[in-house]
Amino acid sequence: MLKLYYARNTCALASHIALEQAGADYEAVRVDFATNAQRSPEYLKINPKGRVPSLVTDRGILTETPAMLAFVAQSYPEAGLAPLDDAFAFAFAQVQAFNSYLCSTVHVAHAHRMRGTRWVDDEAAIAAMKKKVPQSVGACYDLIERKMLKQPWVMGGDYTICDPYLFTLAQWMEADGVDPARLPKLSDHRRRMSERAAVRKAIARELA
Amino acid sequence: MLKLYYARNTCALASHIALEQAGADYEAVRVDFATNAQRSPEYLKINPKGRVPSLVTDRGILTETPAMLAFVAQSYPEAGLAPLDDAFAFAFAQVQAFNSYLCSTVHVAHAHRMRGTRWVDDEAAIAAMKKKVPQSVGACYDLIERKMLKQPWVMGGDYTICDPYLFTLAQWMEADGVDPARLPKLSDHRRRMSERAAVRKAIARELA
Repeated sequence: MLKLYYARNTCALASHIALEQAGADYEAVRVDFATNAQRSPEYLKINPKGRVPSLVTDRGILTETPAMLAFVAQSYPEAGLAPLDDAFAFAFAQVQAFNSYLCSTVHVAHAHRMRGTRWVDDEAAIAAMKKKVPQSVGACYDLIERKMLKQPWVMGGDYTICDPYLFTLAQWMEADGVDPARLPKLSDHRRRMSERAAVRKAIARELA
Repeated sequence: MLKLYYARNTCALASHIALEQAGADYEAVRVDFATNAQRSPEYLKINPKGRVPSLVTDRGILTETPAMLAFVAQSYPEAGLAPLDDAFAFAFAQVQAFNSYLCSTVHVAHAHRMRGTRWVDDEAAIAAMKKKVPQSVGACYDLIERKMLKQPWVMGGDYTICDPYLFTLAQWMEADGVDPARLPKLSDHRRRMSERAAVRKAIARELA
């Protein structure tokens, strides 16, 4: 059985939704950031980076959301969570490119609001970082709205592992100071995602 | 034929090396950052993010290094650049996890030295960011050295798409203020990479 280590209000929700959607046999284990459990010796044995998510499998431990999402899609091909049958590998690479943009640019821009100490020690610099988040995160979502997000799903007609990942990060938009009113396609995507049973179930479990 | 858009001294070198190693039929096209060519209307049509690398294929355009590397590995399976024959998808996910860490954590920590204006406007904050780069980048390489890098290659006995990517980012280590003397496994990896014909050829082309 798979074991997903997650914390509330983190990008782990994306993998949680994907596992739920895939019908995987898994257990969700909460890591309590309030007590800094992600830095405990026990958890560092699972993930030496001290972050969530982590996925314990029969073959070893996986980390990093894009890799975990691809693993779920490839392990449960009947769930149809990624284009795996393309002999040219291009469609799968497009999925990976979108998720790579989310992890390396969108999530990173967002992290400058709450996790500034990763990159500066100075209090004034941390405040300066927070100040720019509405602009830097907003620019990412403008680009996604204009150039990346097909409809109804990220890749067009087929729901893929891009959808729970985008949905998870976009949940933080208002707190990042980005007005969703200017992003009608993205708002529509969020609404449609929030109606899915797998999404509701994963969110309910994390908030319970 | 594939067309790789790159700029000197960027992470595009990783894809350049992988294409060369795969024996791909490709053309390498330089984007001149000195004239801000990555923001030109022509280039923004290729990559609306205004960044390198981009890979133009017969089926469309790909961006984001981890996705491009996976695409090269899957398109040229005879080059053996990734474990593609694992029915459990675990080995490929491990490759993706490593490359995801490079793009979302290592490269991002490094980018706070030269690209601070992505996340702050304030001059003092930019200086504060630069100051922490030796520590934040150094912590990444310490973790890679202690917990991730098998030998002789990142994944152990088999050279994969993790190797050119790690090599490319590690080339910036000294400028980031990280002393390679404390990283013997990583230093050995860099030396072994720099002796490979594909690496030499890609670097020579980029510096020509």
